[in-house]
Amino acid sequence: MRIEEITTKEFAQSVKKGPIVFLPIGATEAHGIHLPLGTDGYQPQALCDALAEEFGGLTAPLLPYGQHSSTRNMPGTIALRSETLRAIVTDIIDSLVRQGVRKLVIISGHAGSVHLAAIREAAEAASVRYQDLKLMFLTDYDIAYKFPLPRSDFRDGHGGLIETSRILALKPSLVGKKRPQGRFEDRRFMIVANPEICYPEGMVGDSTKATAELGNKINDFIFREMVRLIRQNFEV
Amino acid sequence: MRIEEITTKEFAQSVKKGPIVFLPIGATEAHGIHLPLGTDGYQPQALCDALAEEFGGLTAPLLPYGQHSSTRNMPGTIALRSETLRAIVTDIIDSLVRQGVRKLVIISGHAGSVHLAAIREAAEAASVRYQDLKLMFLTDYDIAYKFPLPRSDFRDGHGGLIETSRILALKPSLVGKKRPQGRFEDRRFMIVANPEICYPEGMVGDSTKATAELGNKINDFIFREMVRLIRQNFEV
Amino acid sequence: MRIEEITTKEFAQSVKKGPIVFLPIGATEAHGIHLPLGTDGYQPQALCDALAEEFGGLTAPLLPYGQHSSTRNMPGTIALRSETLRAIVTDIIDSLVRQGVRKLVIISGHAGSVHLAAIREAAEAASVRYQDLKLMFLTDYDIAYKFPLPRSDFRDGHGGLIETSRILALKPSLVGKKRPQGRFEDRRFMIVANPEICYPEGMVGDSTKATAELGNKINDFIFREMVRLIRQNFEV
Amino acid sequence: MRIEEITTKEFAQSVKKGPIVFLPIGATEAHGIHLPLGTDGYQPQALCDALAEEFGGLTAPLLPYGQHSSTRNMPGTIALRSETLRAIVTDIIDSLVRQGVRKLVIISGHAGSVHLAAIREAAEAASVRYQDLKLMFLTDYDIAYKFPLPRSDFRDGHGGLIETSRILALKPSLVGKKRPQGRFEDRRFMIVANPEICYPEGMVGDSTKATAELGNKINDFIFREMVRLIRQNFEV
Amino acid sequence: MRIEEITTKEFAQSVKKGPIVFLPIGATEAHGIHLPLGTDGYQPQALCDALAEEFGGLTAPLLPYGQHSSTRNMPGTIALRSETLRAIVTDIIDSLVRQGVRKLVIISGHAGSVHLAAIREAAEAASVRYQDLKLMFLTDYDIAYKFPLPRSDFRDGHGGLIETSRILALKPSLVGKKRPQGRFEDRRFMIVANPEICYPEGMVGDSTKATAELGNKINDFIFREMVRLIRQNFEV
Amino acid sequence: MRIEEITTKEFAQSVKKGPIVFLPIGATEAHGIHLPLGTDGYQPQALCDALAEEFGGLTAPLLPYGQHSSTRNMPGTIALRSETLRAIVTDIIDSLVRQGVRKLVIISGHAGSVHLAAIREAAEAASVRYQDLKLMFLTDYDIAYKFPLPRSDFRDGHGGLIETSRILALKPSLVGKKRPQGRFEDRRFMIVANPEICYPEGMVGDSTKATAELGNKINDFIFREMVRLIRQNFEV
Repeated sequence: MRIEEITTKEFAQSVKKGPIVFLPIGATEAHGIHLPLGTDGYQPQALCDALAEEFGGLTAPLLPYGQHSSTRNMPGTIALRSETLRAIVTDIIDSLVRQGVRKLVIISGHAGSVHLAAIREAAEAASVRYQDLKLMFLTDYDIAYKFPLPRSDFRDGHGGLIETSRILALKPSLVGKKRPQGRFEDRRFMIVANPEICYPEGMVGDSTKATAELGNKINDFIFREMVRLIRQNFEV
Repeated sequence: MRIEEITTKEFAQSVKKGPIVFLPIGATEAHGIHLPLGTDGYQPQALCDALAEEFGGLTAPLLPYGQHSSTRNMPGTIALRSETLRAIVTDIIDSLVRQGVRKLVIISGHAGSVHLAAIREAAEAASVRYQDLKLMFLTDYDIAYKFPLPRSDFRDGHGGLIETSRILALKPSLVGKKRPQGRFEDRRFMIVANPEICYPEGMVGDSTKATAELGNKINDFIFREMVRLIRQNFEV
Repeated sequence: MRIEEITTKEFAQSVKKGPIVFLPIGATEAHGIHLPLGTDGYQPQALCDALAEEFGGLTAPLLPYGQHSSTRNMPGTIALRSETLRAIVTDIIDSLVRQGVRKLVIISGHAGSVHLAAIREAAEAASVRYQDLKLMFLTDYDIAYKFPLPRSDFRDGHGGLIETSRILALKPSLVGKKRPQGRFEDRRFMIVANPEICYPEGMVGDSTKATAELGNKINDFIFREMVRLIRQNFEV
Repeated sequence: MRIEEITTKEFAQSVKKGPIVFLPIGATEAHGIHLPLGTDGYQPQALCDALAEEFGGLTAPLLPYGQHSSTRNMPGTIALRSETLRAIVTDIIDSLVRQGVRKLVIISGHAGSVHLAAIREAAEAASVRYQDLKLMFLTDYDIAYKFPLPRSDFRDGHGGLIETSRILALKPSLVGKKRPQGRFEDRRFMIVANPEICYPEGMVGDSTKATAELGNKINDFIFREMVRLIRQNFEV
Repeated sequence: MRIEEITTKEFAQSVKKGPIVFLPIGATEAHGIHLPLGTDGYQPQALCDALAEEFGGLTAPLLPYGQHSSTRNMPGTIALRSETLRAIVTDIIDSLVRQGVRKLVIISGHAGSVHLAAIREAAEAASVRYQDLKLMFLTDYDIAYKFPLPRSDFRDGHGGLIETSRILALKPSLVGKKRPQGRFEDRRFMIVANPEICYPEGMVGDSTKATAELGNKINDFIFREMVRLIRQNFEV
Repeated sequence: MRIEEITTKEFAQSVKKGPIVFLPIGATEAHGIHLPLGTDGYQPQALCDALAEEFGGLTAPLLPYGQHSSTRNMPGTIALRSETLRAIVTDIIDSLVRQGVRKLVIISGHAGSVHLAAIREAAEAASVRYQDLKLMFLTDYDIAYKFPLPRSDFRDGHGGLIETSRILALKPSLVGKKRPQGRFEDRRFMIVANPEICYPEGMVGDSTKATAELGNKINDFIFREMVRLIRQNFEV
């Protein structure tokens, strides 16, 4: 069940049962010429919905904005400051805990290092404030990148084979026909005002090989691994 | 077009035409026993989508969280601090302006005074920073409450006749069959830790009279008034 | 008794009796060509002094600065940021509570929506921190605008008939002889860098009809209503 | 002229002449059993008013709250956090500069080191932001303590001979008949939660010797020295 | 040259030549039973000193404190909040740029993800503020972990083979005789209040194999790679 | 023992004995043409090391950066904002207290008023948070300036006779041969963007008279006075 679709009463009844709440965090970010700007939201949204169904839990409304460094100057990226993101996650956790929630899984579709650090900090501070809160946090790409891909000349990354396949499985009509290939251009640790130069194609990997079939396999792979981890972590 | 559904390239092409961007701000808030927690998001989302179509503009992803005072202790309300909300709106405006957007309409479905003040402050500060930004901000309830309702013993408000009717028109399957009547209980300006006591029924108004038909009329009324205001404000 | 006029010993003795403390919040703000910049301070100061006498309470020193949006560019307005105002009110409440005060009435002479939201937030947060604090917050204009005025072509507002009359009653020597008439010019929800264009006369209403007599009546009306509310709220 | 007593028009006319604005910063602070809590406000208020008259300048409304360390637990002290104080002074300076003011004298009646540092920081930052702002900041006690006192067994300080005499000169009816003698008890640089133990009498010095006559002499001494300094600093 | 050891005049003369400034960031952090708490400072300090000599640059004073998550409860860890760390790095960069420095290399000895994100954010924001600043940021472990180690049953990490060897090379007298072996115990993405449970030995790797000789090789490897990167990045 | 040089285990063992921790706070600041930029760090570092040895305590790593007003534009000064400094000291105290430390002596080598106020505030707030923390804070110059100097035409201050002598005793090789004489040029309380004009020689006093012998005497004088104060304060 999605929290936004139920009433206050249904929420109260659900919380009494000690449900796991799944919080999907997305982004509005350039993902190459072929993928929609909401790519990073569609993935954790679908995953959270599936997990909530599996575990009889609740999905909190998708946060569709995140923090962005390397793509922040590309058309369509809407970026929060990291302190804003941390504040949002802090407030949502605080509200959920006050509402009686004690099991929370936060899944971020975007995997930028500063973005993840902001969420992690909010989560770590909450783990100290609320000693009885069981809190899990990851990006689905922590698991996705363990999926065994066929050999390729292209290292897979942002907007690449995995991500294109997953979106083909979830939102096929939003994926462009033209599929790019791209490589990360290393700047040797320089911090630059125009970090998009590291992504000449705006993406990393070979999206020409992407298929909905592969996407479904990866999505299943992630779902099954999440089910396994959650069973252990929450003893459910 | 929704920004999350288009690619970086489509966004870039759209921005070149000087589009109006519509930013819907929702909430996750208790709305009586009969309305879904996402009520305040469904309304501005639908309105923004319709206006974006009318004006060839773009709808930014819905922010599904807001600031809440009086309902913050009710089951299901997830509340941001006002400074968090202000930071989000500031960051989104900053990103959009850096992306080349110069026409922005922010519509909040939630109409709490502190919530609106937080958005207003972010907007006022942006209006000073960006002298060429044309920026309009309101809650759709600024217009909705001008709709001429039939006489009633119940003053209409949060979760009342108008809101129930509008959600019946937009998301009929999410509206409960049992429809409450409720009144605001005045606390004579006392600031209390349990402000929900002012809402014994969790809502204000007579939702028994609500119909999808009335909801459609109100939604049309708001849409037409918004079209009129936008034409004048943006000279389009 | 005004807190600034008594000694530490007299303060300690008074606090032992559980007094109501009245905190007047004023402003330094343009109020048309005819009213002094301190207009918003004189009104709550006089009201608080009268209430403190009535209830054997204490008046805290007037805060003579507030937050201003629409008049911020007019000559003489000195504006705080809303977070500054919130911090001040937070600190004053914290100090008073640490000093043993448990009954507090905050009255703001200025009624801007962002200004009031800042005070309200400080007050709401304090109501959660201090469960035994009885806290009332309003602007005297919440009551003043209920005073039945004679019919007029001018809607009354900032610097208008009520405010001019009240200052004529309180500080006659500070009111200019030339009395303006003015209307609010609606900008249809646009947020602009020069919001003073909504106030071509710098005030709203018909100050030509103002008299000290009317001002006294309004001031009495507010005082009596406040006495009634305080009796109920504080059971005194 | 006091800013709160003039109209927007009078303010605008005055600013055109390039006036010096005097900002008095007071405090609400325990000052021994004999002096009113507003002691630190009465002194800079009177000084600023006299200087404004001397130089044809403007006095901004007194800020009646400050930051307090050693007296913060004594009855009647109302203390701001230092960051709140810094924010207030920052906002007032910003507003005055936007209004066209380019000459500012800030006089604090309270002389606590953290309090003064907060104002100083706001002033230093402003001096960098506004290169054409001429800004002077001191506490009147920077000058008062240079006044040659008769020999005494008591080192003079907070609430002592000078301060009692000055308030006798300014607000005789607010000074108690019983006059204490007190000494500072050194804690050898320990930072303690109850710093009031350093002030067993709540004051430092010998107030039994205080007279209005002496107070007048000291106030004149400060006034004349200020006139001299301002002439040099502002070349007026 | 170390900045702390030269005079204002020598600094001024050096800056005229456009030197690279090296800023070492260390930490005070538990590093197993065998390594000193200052381990993360000794490494970048030595590296920065060597690089400053190589390039005729300046070493800024070592910041000996950082942000810590997983080791924060272990004896001896002194942790800053991430916002504090970000503020420090921001202030140091701002000061250096105002002083005329335009080439900066920041090397962090500690490699925690939130710690690095805090520095990265300060650096990214500076890269936007100062378009002519050439700024490089990394942890020496970005390079150290590329050093080809002999096969081992232990994955190398915090306080492991590399780190122990490097400290044996730099500060032999501070390394304990007893050398532990340890493994990271995975918590499956759970965020816990006692993250030290992931490090039963307080370190990760096999320190029994560590030698000063290996440490010197690794330090040389890092130095040479840094020299190569800096030549390319700064064209020196 | 210096904390950075011991292991986590040694730290844990030491803390069990209830040691005094000494935290030296230095600065990177212009000190005339003759003294190194690290002058303000060398002095408290040496003092803390000696005191830690005397009392069997621990020296925390030197913080080599502080807040600077008057010298901030001089070559080589690296300045933190006061809020950054306050945050650092707050975080270090919080960490130490969580680690079990209950006796802390903070010694700042730099004695600027805003710098000291920032540390003082962090310390005062900690004294309220941790009622069982015994906390002493001073600058060694609180004591140094009590050392009886020979008569001189130069009032001694920043970079003057005392400071030059002390550095000659501690770091003779870092003191320049050319020794300046300088006076503070009073600006009559003006807050200026270029406060270095108050220090035409960049220092205050007569450094030509400085000798290592005098420095040793002063350092001994400070050490002995500190030993005396600590014995009383900590009853050790």
